[in-house]
Amino acid sequence: MSVQHSHRDDFPALRRKIDGEGISYLDNAATTLKPDSVIRAVTEYYETNGANIHRGKHRLSEEASDSYEASRVLIANHLGASANEVVLTRNTTEALNLVAQGLDLDPDAYVVGCMDAHHSQMLPWRRAGRLALTRVDADGRLDREHFRELLRGRPKVVALTHCSNVTGVVHPVAELIAEIRSATDAVVVLDAAQSLPHQRINVRELDVDFLAFSMHKMLGPTGVGVLFGRSRLLAGLRPLAVGGGMVDWVDLDGSVDRRTPYVFEAGTPAIASVIGSGAAVRYLEALDPGALHRHERDLAAALVGGALTSPGVRLVGPAELTDRIGLVSLRLDVGVPTGDVARMLSDSYGYMVRSGHMCSQPLVTGLAGGEILRVSAYLYNEVAEITGFYEALNELLSCIGPAAPVGARR
Amino acid sequence: MSVQHSHRDDFPALRRKIDGEGISYLDNAATTLKPDSVIRAVTEYYETNGANIHRGKHRLSEEASDSYEASRVLIANHLGASANEVVLTRNTTEALNLVAQGLDLDPDAYVVGCMDAHHSQMLPWRRAGRLALTRVDADGRLDREHFRELLRGRPKVVALTHCSNVTGVVHPVAELIAEIRSATDAVVVLDAAQSLPHQRINVRELDVDFLAFSMHKMLGPTGVGVLFGRSRLLAGLRPLAVGGGMVDWVDLDGSVDRRTPYVFEAGTPAIASVIGSGAAVRYLEALDPGALHRHERDLAAALVGGALTSPGVRLVGPAELTDRIGLVSLRLDVGVPTGDVARMLSDSYGYMVRSGHMCSQPLVTGLAGGEILRVSAYLYNEVAEITGFYEALNELLSCIGPAAPVGARR
Repeated sequence: MSVQHSHRDDFPALRRKIDGEGISYLDNAATTLKPDSVIRAVTEYYETNGANIHRGKHRLSEEASDSYEASRVLIANHLGASANEVVLTRNTTEALNLVAQGLDLDPDAYVVGCMDAHHSQMLPWRRAGRLALTRVDADGRLDREHFRELLRGRPKVVALTHCSNVTGVVHPVAELIAEIRSATDAVVVLDAAQSLPHQRINVRELDVDFLAFSMHKMLGPTGVGVLFGRSRLLAGLRPLAVGGGMVDWVDLDGSVDRRTPYVFEAGTPAIASVIGSGAAVRYLEALDPGALHRHERDLAAALVGGALTSPGVRLVGPAELTDRIGLVSLRLDVGVPTGDVARMLSDSYGYMVRSGHMCSQPLVTGLAGGEILRVSAYLYNEVAEITGFYEALNELLSCIGPAAPVGARR
Repeated sequence: MSVQHSHRDDFPALRRKIDGEGISYLDNAATTLKPDSVIRAVTEYYETNGANIHRGKHRLSEEASDSYEASRVLIANHLGASANEVVLTRNTTEALNLVAQGLDLDPDAYVVGCMDAHHSQMLPWRRAGRLALTRVDADGRLDREHFRELLRGRPKVVALTHCSNVTGVVHPVAELIAEIRSATDAVVVLDAAQSLPHQRINVRELDVDFLAFSMHKMLGPTGVGVLFGRSRLLAGLRPLAVGGGMVDWVDLDGSVDRRTPYVFEAGTPAIASVIGSGAAVRYLEALDPGALHRHERDLAAALVGGALTSPGVRLVGPAELTDRIGLVSLRLDVGVPTGDVARMLSDSYGYMVRSGHMCSQPLVTGLAGGEILRVSAYLYNEVAEITGFYEALNELLSCIGPAAPVGARR
């Protein structure tokens, strides 16, 4: 319990009251709250500097450029990567689109993905090539045999999702990548948006070619995504956008691109948010990894346990506590839309949880029929909040009652 | 003088000291400083909310979504546009790339641009079609006869720059657009990044099809660009990126796009920066336009006057004060690189000005041979700062001395 008690005070939004009552923020897979140090880094940039980066020679611009690049180095070090392999984008979605479009695949190129991908790791590949999705079982675990079968088609790209934002399942990506490497010469692109906030990843050890995630899901400001790319492959990507800051020379006949990563960062970036991202990495790296891990496991146990023991609730995803993050999705047997339940949990009980298809509609349709309620915890949450959440949900569901038996179900 | 005295206190970065001395920020064409109200809007979102937008049903998510969309409405109203015509991008560059790529032009499509375009209004069109650039005269004014000649080639797109970030010239875009409309059915795309911070623009009155600008150049946070697009044309654009938040439905066979503007905003956006952008629009709209205009004219007069009377300095752009913003570019006759002069002006005198080719390299090469020093003022600057800047520049240039007559010049 050491993690949350020592750190909750760092998150000012946790002190928020609605109608005089405290709140419980359990929508961390959508975005996390920010510690004071991150907010302060953003504010300080605006209050004491405010200048643009990119080759300005004056003091404020050099300071801003240094802070911006220092964040890139912190992020690179966090991943075991070099700074020139780290592209700062707007979000994970842009990072994945940059790879999917930038590889300039033949429209008929064969790409293997996963059924539990977020739309951002599915739609870009559908647009860029011919996407086949690896099946998952009823718990959302990858069908390894089907995966191997798809690999036999010799894909150009394999687009993996490290951790599902619906089931919370952490896939064995090291094993999957080893299988890919032995069977194909495919480019391996990993969506780590839901995993990296919860575990360290070393891109070299994992042997991944591209890896994408968002700083805002790991205590950083909104507006910053990260694309790691192996130097050789990154250098071959076509930029999504062209303009200022990504060229070294422009004349009437043509232009000369800058080197990576700058060639992918046209225009003025989200300077303040990038600077705040450095503070987020610093915050995360200062935590005790063992205590964090134990705390996450306790939260996951409470989340899964509550789901398994609440009437009218079905857990979408595995009941096991191994290889999962502190996230559960629930299918509710209730006579009102799931979004209404989320609203009531928020407005009457102070629990902030998400509802809908979680931008993973094929999976949610397949596993849960329609909408789900997703409860996702992070390091500042407490087990007591999870207990309280299920008490509220059970009270609410018993008031509303189950769905009508036929036809009336939304 | 009423503008600056009543407003300087709103900008905390103006209180910044370097080595105990105050600073003068004259790099406003790169980005502007932020008033307290904008910084506070960003901080407040992080401190009291922090949630993600996009269909969350819980209270914090609804609040965040409301604030995010309220900024869009404020921006739309500022332009005389509808909210569904306003796409929030990362920056002007992304906005212009979205149009250039989104129009899905034939690679051979003929596009008319301007020689004084920023790289972000030049390179995307070179990539998308066959770009011809309208010549400018020695002062950076468009060659209207050449423009008419290029229009006779019946371009698919005319990519205009409202105000040059090198010369400060504000082009007569209303006249140019009338000429385009009478000669062609071209799509008119206007880069207003340097004009909108200084003047109101009504997109309907101007009869423009697309208009792009960046909030960070008009007191807003970094990380937010805006693309206005006429509904009918916007609806036909192909999104730059696909993923979560921009689709209404995804299944195993395909997906259904959301309507504009959401279809262009895949993934989690720069929520805090967008919310701060609303505060920036509010701040600008609360200013007295007449006083602002007079103040800007005084600043421009001081900038041009100083350039014309300083030895070893050549004004790049027109000497007239009409149709220009408070920005001058200077070509220096000096024995060191221009960047070194900028550094010395910053480190020894506290004047923050930009040096280089300003991401308008073809123009700067044509008009000034190489690098320039750019001095750009905004509403919080004072005429006395401009006077002081030229005193410092003159002192510095007289110390360094002119360039060697042959060969030694960089």
